[in-house]
Amino acid sequence: MRAAASTDTIAERVLAGDVRAAARLMRGLDDGDGAAVEVLRKLYPHTGRAYVVGITGSPGAGKSSITDRLIAHYRKEGKTVGVVAVDPTSPFSGGAILGDRIRMQDHALDLGVFIRSLATRGSLGGLSRATSDVTRVMDAMGKDVILVETVGVGQDEIDVASLAHTTIVVVVPGMGDDIQAIKAGILEVADIFAINKADRPEADRTERELRAMIELRHVTMPADHDSLHRFHAEAPATERRDDYTWEPPIVRTIATRNKGFDALAERIAEHRAHLESAGGRLAREATRARAEFLAILRDRLVKSALERIGREQGDLDELATRIARKEADPYELVEQIVSRLR
Amino acid sequence: MRAAASTDTIAERVLAGDVRAAARLMRGLDDGDGAAVEVLRKLYPHTGRAYVVGITGSPGAGKSSITDRLIAHYRKEGKTVGVVAVDPTSPFSGGAILGDRIRMQDHALDLGVFIRSLATRGSLGGLSRATSDVTRVMDAMGKDVILVETVGVGQDEIDVASLAHTTIVVVVPGMGDDIQAIKAGILEVADIFAINKADRPEADRTERELRAMIELRHVTMPADHDSLHRFHAEAPATERRDDYTWEPPIVRTIATRNKGFDALAERIAEHRAHLESAGGRLAREATRARAEFLAILRDRLVKSALERIGREQGDLDELATRIARKEADPYELVEQIVSRLR
Repeated sequence: MRAAASTDTIAERVLAGDVRAAARLMRGLDDGDGAAVEVLRKLYPHTGRAYVVGITGSPGAGKSSITDRLIAHYRKEGKTVGVVAVDPTSPFSGGAILGDRIRMQDHALDLGVFIRSLATRGSLGGLSRATSDVTRVMDAMGKDVILVETVGVGQDEIDVASLAHTTIVVVVPGMGDDIQAIKAGILEVADIFAINKADRPEADRTERELRAMIELRHVTMPADHDSLHRFHAEAPATERRDDYTWEPPIVRTIATRNKGFDALAERIAEHRAHLESAGGRLAREATRARAEFLAILRDRLVKSALERIGREQGDLDELATRIARKEADPYELVEQIVSRLR
Repeated sequence: MRAAASTDTIAERVLAGDVRAAARLMRGLDDGDGAAVEVLRKLYPHTGRAYVVGITGSPGAGKSSITDRLIAHYRKEGKTVGVVAVDPTSPFSGGAILGDRIRMQDHALDLGVFIRSLATRGSLGGLSRATSDVTRVMDAMGKDVILVETVGVGQDEIDVASLAHTTIVVVVPGMGDDIQAIKAGILEVADIFAINKADRPEADRTERELRAMIELRHVTMPADHDSLHRFHAEAPATERRDDYTWEPPIVRTIATRNKGFDALAERIAEHRAHLESAGGRLAREATRARAEFLAILRDRLVKSALERIGREQGDLDELATRIARKEADPYELVEQIVSRLR
């Protein structure tokens, strides 16, 4: 944040859709800059209009191609689009090494599309906080739809998925392993399944397996959740008790041949309508607010604690060496910090 | 923790290798029980003897089968083994749905093997703390080798990998996507690569790709780390500056036919010898201590903060609804909590 512009001015510029002001604000938030957080607080009451769609799945499932097709779809409808690429292998984040190059150049010159990528490493749990912040800023800019692309394995990534209104889980036929991974983690957050590369011969089998899993979900979810509650003091951020009546539809897509995207967009619209009927939207917004609040809390807590430790204990690497030599006790050090919260 | 046994008694029992006392202690730690943490602090000075081997990779790569074969190998050498299954798809954690059933029954009756699985969801970053705690307890019990099996995608899982002395990254031929995922995240933590299912025709190509990546790592790592430092206030927990001279070897295994495990165990022993020469072990222990300290800090901070919020703001779900209705500002709430740490 430059001192030149007041936080009010910056907030106004972002609300007017100013791309440079928004990008600078996002960098400030990345750096944990106090003035940037102040701007975000000013923007907060003006947010909540954007519709957030999460696109998640294993590396190589074709998430980026699907994101690409959805951008084109929404732009054709005249909507403005924000893209947050949290997937390190995404071409949107400059990451695709083996995958086919996406035609994101098409969107680079389109002022209705704002793309932002996030580093996924070294974040110490800051990943969902960063995603949440960037999504808020894009929302404040007036983007109609925000697409969040994430890798679908790992707790952080599941937390990210729970920041969306509608989450699409992308699977590929012939990777039985994927089904396992979904079963293990992201089934609860799936609102729509997309079977991409659906021209593969195993597509029918994948669809059958998904249907079986969706059936099972009704039976096993409550018990599963109960055991999680027993295991952890706090309820999981991924929990979604608001819309058990929604049966996740399965859509077949072939991103490389632009097939199935009208159907996918329709399913998204239907899920949105479902959320908006009968107070579903508020319940989902509460789930999102919960995930967002926890993400911000976790990130700022750790950052502040590390600053304090830096002042009191010196460099973190030296402290780690002292711990390794058994000259310092990590449990005691943590206790000293944590006692301040009591 | 039962009030009946003093923390001293429990610590003594665990140090004597008492399985029931250890299991009860682990449950206490899961629940964030104060007395359990006290026991862990008493055990801490007695730990540091166990050798911790991380086994990580995508779902379906065969991590559990490799873990299984390594248990058998170390048991044959007369060593006691602890297993921490952080992989939700692992049969060790009761998770394998499609994968072939492991012969863990063989080990279930073996008193020299102690197996513990951890839930990976709803942990709010507590996963690496839980892994760290369980590993410490097994170490205190006198286990010679501790095998930690984790899914290899996602920040939490990478944090878990950095708790190990030697980390094996398992890949499968013919899944080009995997290489992408590795590139994106866990290359830095790989001490050894295992190409499992090496009888597949694409094994040669996978090995070539891995070799190319290992070459690249020398070139790209420093710049990469530098940019991470700029991006984040604190250095990443996954960083390992201690042993750039170690070139990760590649071992081919076929778990189903028990091939390649003598070679794999040899590479582990070589890496251990490498760490122990020229002060490398202390540097790695410092890296581990750093990851462990951050994991404990993060977990206890969030738990304490949520307890405080519970007392002051009431139920978290109700608070989330207030935030969703814009009746409360998440940034302001976080600021109130964080200010106590200043």
